Amino acid sequence: MSGLGRLIALEGVDGCGKSTQAARLARAVGALSTAEPGATQLGTTLRTLLLDPGLPPVSERAEALLMAADRAQHVDEVVRPALGAGRWVVTERFSGSTLAYQGYGRGLDLDELRRLVLWATGGIEPDLTILLDVSPSLARGRRDLERADRLERLDAGFHGRVRDGYRALAEADPDTWVVVDAGADVEVVAEQLLAVVRERLGPLPTVR
Amino acid sequence: MSGLGRLIALEGVDGCGKSTQAARLARAVGALSTAEPGATQLGTTLRTLLLDPGLPPVSERAEALLMAADRAQHVDEVVRPALGAGRWVVTERFSGSTLAYQGYGRGLDLDELRRLVLWATGGIEPDLTILLDVSPSLARGRRDLERADRLERLDAGFHGRVRDGYRALAEADPDTWVVVDAGADVEVVAEQLLAVVRERLGPLPTVR
Repeated sequence: MSGLGRLIALEGVDGCGKSTQAARLARAVGALSTAEPGATQLGTTLRTLLLDPGLPPVSERAEALLMAADRAQHVDEVVRPALGAGRWVVTERFSGSTLAYQGYGRGLDLDELRRLVLWATGGIEPDLTILLDVSPSLARGRRDLERADRLERLDAGFHGRVRDGYRALAEADPDTWVVVDAGADVEVVAEQLLAVVRERLGPLPTVR
Repeated sequence: MSGLGRLIALEGVDGCGKSTQAARLARAVGALSTAEPGATQLGTTLRTLLLDPGLPPVSERAEALLMAADRAQHVDEVVRPALGAGRWVVTERFSGSTLAYQGYGRGLDLDELRRLVLWATGGIEPDLTILLDVSPSLARGRRDLERADRLERLDAGFHGRVRDGYRALAEADPDTWVVVDAGADVEVVAEQLLAVVRERLGPLPTVR
């Protein structure tokens, strides 16, 4: 019996405030808080391979496949068991990231990527995806360029395509996606997220 | 200009003699000799993640996706450039391994896997795939069980399914696959492989 568990994904470019908001939202609704890539032991190694600027280059398709492998393991070890036990789950990044970064950002075919991520998750999709939308310049200001990973170091053109891609994904699927202006104060954004979750998913689970 | 390069894949269960035969065949036809998983720098790490029995378990779909990622990088870094330069390439394992191991062995859907591997290679398929067929008992005898990797350690049922799967793949696609009895003497098998290559692919390239 699954049924009661809900999956909420927070998406957005680096520097949009996902980590902070995911932790707050998970606490507020009593959900398990998790993140991609790197939520599992396998995933921590894949995260390094994908993001460490010091490692040799990874081809575009290999990058998409490694992200999908990380997600498959994440779903099997963490997400599916939690949902199956009736828990709510808040994940920082999920399938939307692959479509935005490897699709709109890298230019890989979107329909092929959709098929890939759906196969990787065994059909699990978020009940709600919230895009934390910020302007590229604000996001850039928030990023620590000294410590930027491989994807963060890509040029402004790439990050612009990713942001536009996220907005296009949200626009094309308004039943599942909601866009929140993440340029506002942290407290204001947190309240908005909670309001969106209540409106879209109904009564919150009992906080444990 | 591609056109002149040909891709030959040697397939078969562990212990069938692929490594020895791939090296000999590549030398005989003046081809580049390569192998999966692990032909690239990224691949060496993925190979460890996939095969080291000491590392935490990898879920079935994550395993298939990591194999596909290894192949995507292999194609982009090694196979496609060589074929594009007109070279012949002999690879120990290619897409057939994913279908045999993750499909027939693990039980993942074959059509989904076919789509996955075709996407991973950007549409590159072997001109010729040679299955080095040996009985499970002979293959087991040849394997060094002390040093067996994660897939080699799986039970006889798994290895039986993989062998039967390979034979089914060859039977279903006789234009591209050829089955060679690899239980014979090394020299005899090597001569057979060369004869198969001449018959199927015509005049060998100039050995350089």
